[in-house]
Amino acid sequence: MADKPHVVIIGGGFGGLYAAQALNRAPVRITLIDKSNHHLFQPLLYQVATAGLSPGDIAEPIRTILRHQRNVHVLMAEVIDIDVDARQVHLADDDPIGYDHLILATGATHTYFGNDQWSDLAPGLKSLENAVSIRKQFLTAFEEAERTKDKALRRKLLTFVIIGGGPTGVELAGTMAEMARQALPRDFDNIAPDDARVILLEGSPRVLKVYPEELSAKAQKALEDRGVEVRTKSRVTEIDNDGVFIKEERVEAANVFWAAGVQGNPLGRCLGAPTTKRGLVKVNPDLTIPDHPEVFVVGDLAQLTDAEGKYVPGVAQGAIQMGQYAARVIRSRVAGKAAPKPFVYKDKGSMATIGRAAAVAMVGKRQFSGWFAWLMWLAVHLLFLIGFDNRLIVLIQWTWYYFSYKQGTRLITASYKGHENPRLNPAMAAYEVGSAEQETEATV
Amino acid sequence: MADKPHVVIIGGGFGGLYAAQALNRAPVRITLIDKSNHHLFQPLLYQVATAGLSPGDIAEPIRTILRHQRNVHVLMAEVIDIDVDARQVHLADDDPIGYDHLILATGATHTYFGNDQWSDLAPGLKSLENAVSIRKQFLTAFEEAERTKDKALRRKLLTFVIIGGGPTGVELAGTMAEMARQALPRDFDNIAPDDARVILLEGSPRVLKVYPEELSAKAQKALEDRGVEVRTKSRVTEIDNDGVFIKEERVEAANVFWAAGVQGNPLGRCLGAPTTKRGLVKVNPDLTIPDHPEVFVVGDLAQLTDAEGKYVPGVAQGAIQMGQYAARVIRSRVAGKAAPKPFVYKDKGSMATIGRAAAVAMVGKRQFSGWFAWLMWLAVHLLFLIGFDNRLIVLIQWTWYYFSYKQGTRLITASYKGHENPRLNPAMAAYEVGSAEQETEATV
Repeated sequence: MADKPHVVIIGGGFGGLYAAQALNRAPVRITLIDKSNHHLFQPLLYQVATAGLSPGDIAEPIRTILRHQRNVHVLMAEVIDIDVDARQVHLADDDPIGYDHLILATGATHTYFGNDQWSDLAPGLKSLENAVSIRKQFLTAFEEAERTKDKALRRKLLTFVIIGGGPTGVELAGTMAEMARQALPRDFDNIAPDDARVILLEGSPRVLKVYPEELSAKAQKALEDRGVEVRTKSRVTEIDNDGVFIKEERVEAANVFWAAGVQGNPLGRCLGAPTTKRGLVKVNPDLTIPDHPEVFVVGDLAQLTDAEGKYVPGVAQGAIQMGQYAARVIRSRVAGKAAPKPFVYKDKGSMATIGRAAAVAMVGKRQFSGWFAWLMWLAVHLLFLIGFDNRLIVLIQWTWYYFSYKQGTRLITASYKGHENPRLNPAMAAYEVGSAEQETEATV
Repeated sequence: MADKPHVVIIGGGFGGLYAAQALNRAPVRITLIDKSNHHLFQPLLYQVATAGLSPGDIAEPIRTILRHQRNVHVLMAEVIDIDVDARQVHLADDDPIGYDHLILATGATHTYFGNDQWSDLAPGLKSLENAVSIRKQFLTAFEEAERTKDKALRRKLLTFVIIGGGPTGVELAGTMAEMARQALPRDFDNIAPDDARVILLEGSPRVLKVYPEELSAKAQKALEDRGVEVRTKSRVTEIDNDGVFIKEERVEAANVFWAAGVQGNPLGRCLGAPTTKRGLVKVNPDLTIPDHPEVFVVGDLAQLTDAEGKYVPGVAQGAIQMGQYAARVIRSRVAGKAAPKPFVYKDKGSMATIGRAAAVAMVGKRQFSGWFAWLMWLAVHLLFLIGFDNRLIVLIQWTWYYFSYKQGTRLITASYKGHENPRLNPAMAAYEVGSAEQETEATV
């Protein structure tokens, strides 16, 4: 075992996980390193942020997914550096790990374009922690609004600004509007549906700008039908405790969420390979980096225009196909066979939901919208979740929510470390409530 | 509306929630105050701590539960004081609220018997946050053990000490042992089932000491069958970074959990009524406090031997019956009718699970154990959950886990504020992994 080539995969997202699975039964030993213990089904992350699904519905421990694959060892650890000359991965609190082949699949994170002071004022949505934190902020704003008698304050508390009109921003805005203007007010005595404002800001002339214009227009219409104020050509110039500025215009809002910039994980810069100004690694047609054919970069962290001239988008399908391709190259090398042809991205289509029963999708040149696109979206996402035991549970939940018009897990739990909404009253944290079970006497 | 008598209920646990519901359509206006937004089904909290259920499975927003009840206003706020003479409840950051009738139902919390420095070293299990924090510590210990080559350290990392042999301690120990010695090792390369030790410490001569001796013995046997080391007559004298001391004996353990002492919520002492040394309020036979017939204390915070001489235990049934009784008294007063007879606790039986297919139960004088008791436990708890939409989902999950022998939501998410295991390496917190969706360009 120890003399088999050692493949180290950093990151257990779509790219890393599918690479590992594509190396099943290959004569290599694999170490998959991730700082978290779970693979995250990120396309549904906005559902956790808007209280539709639980964290457990869209995440699964990596080692559980890979438990039957014998040649993989899963390590929960933090990678702090990569030495491509010594072929070693450095960990935060452990010995370095040597490799024969490296697949870097750490993905991307959001960027505030140099305005890092905005990160607390406008949290982004990349991890489960982000999602639970946004959910908490979203629900707490309603609780605070219910309490206050100050109308202006209530208005501000119930104003939700989402920055960035890409798929994440659109999905977040659509779902939040449905929650904020339809589902939630029914639970509150002092909040009417029209009290809540959801504003989607997009710098370019249209939302979902990578989609055809027609679909962008349909998405915007669907958002507006749900009460979202869609403002295109609107660039945020400042974010502060009272909301945002769009040039000179002040928008008062207690809740600002960031769905705009993306930058590569910092580990990408450790490789010495060329990167874009956002830190994405420019890879060769076979996904390796210059001078280091043993180092692959896959997924959102890689930037590539494929052999057919198609730009590979930062979506799950791109990561999956790249991960599988890197595994194929390693397989052929280990077997002493010729290298496979350069990577070609196979576009299986893309889709974004706007809310209940509304979505836009394109598959090849065909476009879909409305109900039918939404059903497609549902089917595809449930099929994707098929690796998870919980797909049945998610289906039942969605069916239930759909007919009861009641969303799922509206829990405000103690804040995760990291983000706290600086605009909300930080109190609320003292007494314990409602113990149902009690030892009758002390036993120690 | 405003001239109807105002009933303020503090706490949305079993006592407070059932009191509110029992006042449905009564000619009163009710304000239910809780610092959290959810009612918690606390009998299943240990399932969240041991990764069997998600927080969302056992909790539901209080205002959602009460949405159809017109005379209730739900307020998420923190109560910091009660002025029984002025009949006012003081909030942390809002005006005081006056009342005509007060139902205090804030429950109990755990106590370290004066050793408050133990609270970080041996977290207890009362809230969802506690449960998620214990789950994180439990799962992280396995991840750390998988990484280390030091056998003594691995042993220590995989030693789980549970202090207190009441229902919570027994359920926690049984489920943890099944997870630690059966389910989890299959996911790890370097951990064998026997590597994990689960030790249950109980000061008195037997576990579940409020149960008949026979059932205590059966519970202990069932625990031991699952690999739990049950040590009765064992009092912990010290807890530190390396584990615990039982008198002179050192037990090395990275994980120590507290299921022992219980004390009343501090608000109980604001009433000026007599309390036990653990802060439980000694209530009159009608659940009010001396000199203040308008102030009721119900649930775990109340201490009472009922009119038939039965001590009312701190369990869900006790809280529910007390809450409903207080509501009945208020109804009769408002209607100008005679007061109901003093409160009598109707013992519907009690039960504790030890793990898969094992439980002990007693209903009246009849005792049950093993498979049948476990099915009873399952049925009762699912029936209880019937107020929740998720009972179907929980049933499906349990059926699935039962047959797949795979537990549910084994997620290690960023730590909640509050508890961090001081014995584990605090690192592991830097890179973001596996982004599946990425805006292709910045839009701000």
